[in-house]
Amino acid sequence: MTAPSPLDPEFLARLDALLGPAGVQEAAALAGLDPGYHPDNLAAGVQASPRSVAEVSGLLALCHGAGVSVVPQGGRTGLVGGGATHSGQVILSTRRLDRVVEIDTAARLAVVEAGVTLQRLQEAAAEHGLTPGIDLAARGSATIGGLIATNAGGIEAFRRGTMRDRVLGLEFVRADGTVVSDLVRVLKNNTGYDLKDLIAGSEGTLGIVTRAVIRLERLVPPAATAFIGCASADSALVAAGRLRDRFPGRLRALEILWHDYAATVAQEHGQSLSGFGLDPAPVYLLTEAEQDPDLDIATAMEAEIGALWEEGAVTGAALAQNERQRELFWRIRDDSDAVSRPCPDAKTFDVSVPLSALPAYVARIRADLAAAFSPDMRVYVFGHLADGNLHIMVGDRPAGSMGRIEAILYDGLAALGGSFSAEHGIGLEKQDAFRRYGDPARRAAMAAIKAALDPTGILNPGKILS
Amino acid sequence: MTAPSPLDPEFLARLDALLGPAGVQEAAALAGLDPGYHPDNLAAGVQASPRSVAEVSGLLALCHGAGVSVVPQGGRTGLVGGGATHSGQVILSTRRLDRVVEIDTAARLAVVEAGVTLQRLQEAAAEHGLTPGIDLAARGSATIGGLIATNAGGIEAFRRGTMRDRVLGLEFVRADGTVVSDLVRVLKNNTGYDLKDLIAGSEGTLGIVTRAVIRLERLVPPAATAFIGCASADSALVAAGRLRDRFPGRLRALEILWHDYAATVAQEHGQSLSGFGLDPAPVYLLTEAEQDPDLDIATAMEAEIGALWEEGAVTGAALAQNERQRELFWRIRDDSDAVSRPCPDAKTFDVSVPLSALPAYVARIRADLAAAFSPDMRVYVFGHLADGNLHIMVGDRPAGSMGRIEAILYDGLAALGGSFSAEHGIGLEKQDAFRRYGDPARRAAMAAIKAALDPTGILNPGKILS
Repeated sequence: MTAPSPLDPEFLARLDALLGPAGVQEAAALAGLDPGYHPDNLAAGVQASPRSVAEVSGLLALCHGAGVSVVPQGGRTGLVGGGATHSGQVILSTRRLDRVVEIDTAARLAVVEAGVTLQRLQEAAAEHGLTPGIDLAARGSATIGGLIATNAGGIEAFRRGTMRDRVLGLEFVRADGTVVSDLVRVLKNNTGYDLKDLIAGSEGTLGIVTRAVIRLERLVPPAATAFIGCASADSALVAAGRLRDRFPGRLRALEILWHDYAATVAQEHGQSLSGFGLDPAPVYLLTEAEQDPDLDIATAMEAEIGALWEEGAVTGAALAQNERQRELFWRIRDDSDAVSRPCPDAKTFDVSVPLSALPAYVARIRADLAAAFSPDMRVYVFGHLADGNLHIMVGDRPAGSMGRIEAILYDGLAALGGSFSAEHGIGLEKQDAFRRYGDPARRAAMAAIKAALDPTGILNPGKILS
Repeated sequence: MTAPSPLDPEFLARLDALLGPAGVQEAAALAGLDPGYHPDNLAAGVQASPRSVAEVSGLLALCHGAGVSVVPQGGRTGLVGGGATHSGQVILSTRRLDRVVEIDTAARLAVVEAGVTLQRLQEAAAEHGLTPGIDLAARGSATIGGLIATNAGGIEAFRRGTMRDRVLGLEFVRADGTVVSDLVRVLKNNTGYDLKDLIAGSEGTLGIVTRAVIRLERLVPPAATAFIGCASADSALVAAGRLRDRFPGRLRALEILWHDYAATVAQEHGQSLSGFGLDPAPVYLLTEAEQDPDLDIATAMEAEIGALWEEGAVTGAALAQNERQRELFWRIRDDSDAVSRPCPDAKTFDVSVPLSALPAYVARIRADLAAAFSPDMRVYVFGHLADGNLHIMVGDRPAGSMGRIEAILYDGLAALGGSFSAEHGIGLEKQDAFRRYGDPARRAAMAAIKAALDPTGILNPGKILS
C-alpha cells in the first residue's frame, strides 16, 4: 500500500476541485494498480488524470504556483525510470486523454490525444488501410504521449524514422500551464525553432504532450518472413545490405539475433531453431518484406537468400510457411523477457553502433567482458540491425560490476559515432553514463534550455539532467 | 562599393590576427562578390572566413567579448533575407570550411564541413553509388550548413524528409565560442534533448553549424518521367495518390503545376506543352520513378496513367522520350525565375496545405485575389504536391497590397493545419506574418530558448524573432 502523500491538504482540495473526484486517485486507489516497469512509478501516492488540455493547463498552473513537481505517465512501460516518482510529487496520468480525434485519409494523418495507446491508433488507422509506421512490443500499453516523450524507435525506424519523425504537429503544456499549440498537419513548416522535435525525447522535463498529429502510411500486409542463418556478423551485414537494396521500400524489418539469444528464447518457448530446419549459425537475421503487385516477394526472397548462400554469407534459412510460424519467428525476436528465466540477473543495455563498426564492436565487448569477468559470463545480443541498434543483455554480473560493464560497453562508443542510449532514453538509470559519456558542452546547452522552459524545475525533476 | 565598416580598428586587427589576411575581407574585396538573393547580404562590409571549427570558435569568442554581432552565410541563396547584414556586423562565411571529410559506404553516411555545396556532396556520394537524398535548384551554390540552418526541403522531402531528417550528427558553435560536438553516426540516439533538430531551421540565430554527418541513400537512376494533364486539382490528387501507391519507395518526385505557370515557363523557354503532345489542362503533374529490377517502370507508368485516363482523372500525358526531354520537363518545373520576365513584380509565397484541403485552398485564394484586386491579376501556382507545399507567385500587385495579399493567402491556414512558410523560413521578410500568424505561446517559448542559448543576442540578430 502506498503511503499517504505529504502534500498540503489545501493543495489536494484544489486538485479535487479542479479535476473532480474521478480525476484524482490517492494511496488506497493506487495500491491496486500495476506500477509498470519501475517500482517507484506510483510512489508519489497521488495521481491526477485530466480529461482535457484545459485541465492539464489548470493542473500545471496549480502545481507551478504551489511548487509541486509533476511526473507525466502514459503506459508506464519506460525502461530507464523516466516515470519514477517520490512522495510529495503529483503523477500526471494521461489515461483519460484517450480520444482518437480524427483520421484524415486523404492527408494520411491522425489527430490523437496523448493517452491513446499505440495499438488503438494502429487499429483505428488499419480500418482505413493505414498504419502509423511505428511498432514495438509494448504497443498494448505504451501511449502516443509516452512514445513522443521518449522518442520511441522500434523495428520500422530504419525506413520510417523514430517517433519524432512520425509527428507532424504537437500540442504541449509548459510548466506554468501555458498551452503551446502547433497542430500542424504538413511535413514542411519552417516557421521558427523546432519545438516539436525538442519536446519529443525530452522525457517530460520540458513540457507535457497533450495532443499530436501523426503521419500515417499505407498498410501493406507482409508477404515473406525469413529467419536466416549467417556465417558471421560481417556476413549478416552483407546479407542485410543486399536485402535492403533488393526490396527498396518494401522491407519492413531487418533484425539481428546472435545465436545464444535466439536459441535461449526459442527454448523457453519450447521450440528449437533446428525445428525450422535451421542449422546453428553464429548470427541470424529476421527479415520481413511486404506484398508487391509486381513481384512474388516470397520467391524473390528465396532467390536472393539462395544467391547469398552460394556466396557463403548465408548458411541456411527458413521462410515462415504460415501465420503461426511467422508469429513464432517474431516471438523469438520480441520476447527478451524469456531470457530472464534462465538468467535472472540479465540487465539490458541499448546502444547504437554505425554499421561499418558493428561486427568488431560486438566481438570486442564479448572478449572484454569474458576477460574482465568470466569466459562463461552470459551475454545475449540482438537488435535492429538496419539502424545499428543493439540490445545487449548481460547476465552473471558480480556485485558492484555495473561501472565496469558500462565502461566495456560505452568506452569508445562516442568516438565511433555511436550512442550509449539508442531507444530507451536517460531517465534515472542512465544518468551516470550520461555524465560520463555526454559531451559537457551539449549537457550545458541542454541545462540552459531546461532552465529557460521550466525555470522552477517542476517538470519531471531529476530526470535526464540532475 | 560597400562602405567601410564602423567596427573598431582594434577589433579588426584582432580579427586579422585570428584568421590571417586570407581570412578577412573588407569593403574593397567584397565589392566584387555576388551578394546573392538579398541586396543587403554584404552590407556589413566585413567578411570573416574561418578554416576550422577552432577558428569559428575563436571568432565567436572575439565577437561575443566585443559585443559584435555575427551573420553566418553559405551560398547566399536564402529567399527571405536570413543572411542580410548591416554596418557594424561581421559576416561569417563558411566558404573555407569546404572539406568532404569522409564517405562511409558501409554505414551510408557522409561527414562534411558546413561550406561544402550540395552539388559537391552529391558528386562525392555519387562516386560510390549514393545520394544525400535531398535536391533543389540552388544545389550549385547552397551549402550544407545553409541547408541545415534553413531546414531546406525540395522535391524529395516527401519520401526522404527535409534537411533536418538527413542529418544524423551535428557540430555547432555557440555564441560565446563553445563548441558543441554531437557527430553521431546513427539514427537512434536518445541521450537528452534534440539539439541537432533545434539548430536545424534556426537560421543561424542559436548556433553556427560547422560540420555534419549526413545520411546517404542508394542512388537509383530515373526510369520514367511523365508530364500529366489532369482534369482538376482534385483529379491531380487522385492521380498522385495512385502513383504513390503504385510505385512505393520508387517515386522520387510528385510535383504539381497549374496551367498558367507551366505554359508561361514553357513559353519563356521557346517551348509549348502541345509540342509534347499535351492538350491544355487546368493542372499538370510532373512525376519521376526510379529503375526497378522487377519492373519495366516506364510501361507500368504508362499503364497506370492509362487507367487514370479511362477514369477521367487524367486528360493526357507525355513520357520523356530521352534525357533532353526529361531535362526540359524539369526546366519547366524549376525555372520559376522565368515568370518574372513577363511578370516582373511577381512575388513568391511558400505555403503548406494538408492534401485534403489543398484543391479548395487554391480555388479560394484565386477567387479572393481576383475579387480583392482584379480578375486579370496573374497568379502562378506550382509546388511539391506530395507534401502539400505550394509556391504561389502573385503578380500585378498594386502598391501597398502586401498585407492584403498575405491575409488572403495566410488567413485560416493555421486552422487547416498548414504553414505560411513551408521551406523558406522567416528571415527578415516573413516577420510580419510570423507576428500575425504564429502562436504567441510558441513565439514566447522560442524567445526563451534564444535568450538561453545566446543571451547577448549576437547571433544573426533581428532574424526570425525581433
